[in-house]
Amino acid sequence: MESYSAPIANLIEEFEKLPGIGHKTACRLAFYVLNETPEEAKKFAEAINIAKDKIKFCTVCGNLTDSELCPICSNSKRDQSIICVVSDVKDIMAMEKTHEFKGVYHVLQGAISPVNGIGPEDIRIRELISRLNENVSEVILATNLNVEGEATAMYISRLIKPMGIKVTRIAHGIPVGGDLEYTDEVTLSMALEGRREL
Amino acid sequence: MESYSAPIANLIEEFEKLPGIGHKTACRLAFYVLNETPEEAKKFAEAINIAKDKIKFCTVCGNLTDSELCPICSNSKRDQSIICVVSDVKDIMAMEKTHEFKGVYHVLQGAISPVNGIGPEDIRIRELISRLNENVSEVILATNLNVEGEATAMYISRLIKPMGIKVTRIAHGIPVGGDLEYTDEVTLSMALEGRREL
Repeated sequence: MESYSAPIANLIEEFEKLPGIGHKTACRLAFYVLNETPEEAKKFAEAINIAKDKIKFCTVCGNLTDSELCPICSNSKRDQSIICVVSDVKDIMAMEKTHEFKGVYHVLQGAISPVNGIGPEDIRIRELISRLNENVSEVILATNLNVEGEATAMYISRLIKPMGIKVTRIAHGIPVGGDLEYTDEVTLSMALEGRREL
Repeated sequence: MESYSAPIANLIEEFEKLPGIGHKTACRLAFYVLNETPEEAKKFAEAINIAKDKIKFCTVCGNLTDSELCPICSNSKRDQSIICVVSDVKDIMAMEKTHEFKGVYHVLQGAISPVNGIGPEDIRIRELISRLNENVSEVILATNLNVEGEATAMYISRLIKPMGIKVTRIAHGIPVGGDLEYTDEVTLSMALEGRREL
């Protein structure tokens, strides 16, 4: 649009690239940044650069970190004998919010998906296997409940079970507050299958 | 949260400062940026810095620009004799989208608001008056239809009218697609008041 100067148009374009940000929101964000003090805007730009420069993958679990080990792997209070396997770094954040899990993680950085040409060797399964030793008592498979996540969980469980390590899968069923009437049949059959004695 | 490294937490925090961006969206945006190539992330950070460094106010109308004059003021095809007065730079964008207005703008950068301690001398009214000469045939007041916008429009019209320049106010009424039944009474009385002969 002719009424925008090039630097503004460029900034709006950059915001538009972000997920879930349309043109209107991008404009609002760009104008917000332009209205900030120069220091604030600089801090924002720097935060992007610093995060991008310093953040790398934890050499053990594949979580994002700014040092050799991520805050979870380097935390001596975490139980290193229980490894929770997730597909994505964001899944760690979701798990951590429960404050229930005191073990460590392993990020696969993907899931097996033959349709997209992603095989077992393309995700961090090899790294997971090499972490398993006599100190590891349990591997919890917390990949997503979709075709890719299930296939990945099955594949990993077949690899690990022969090693004599306990392999578990997180429970699938009706979410808290969920209504039987509106629960889809797949979830409902999962919930039935996973029923526990009281 | 302990599972975030400082640079990530910092980036999330910066995103959270943006309007309409909550913690979850900020996380999603931060992880998106971290997943980008280093070049892309750098471009984003640069766009912020460049926009902030280069963008200033047009010396004539107060629009945002990267040169002395904004693209509208420097466009010789625009009719310099009609000045549309708006409160905010974003209002120019809204007006420009109509492709109807061929004149130039004047951004007040605010509106008179005694409650917030903003008087006529705090917004760019003086600059507007100094722009008015024999070449200006009409001033369109397009401030918002709220207490502040109305007060500002009234104040300016009283200043300009004695100078013999035509002063108009954009029409207020039922929006296109609007339903009489659901139109609030103030808008409806505005629409009645502004009725035109067919």
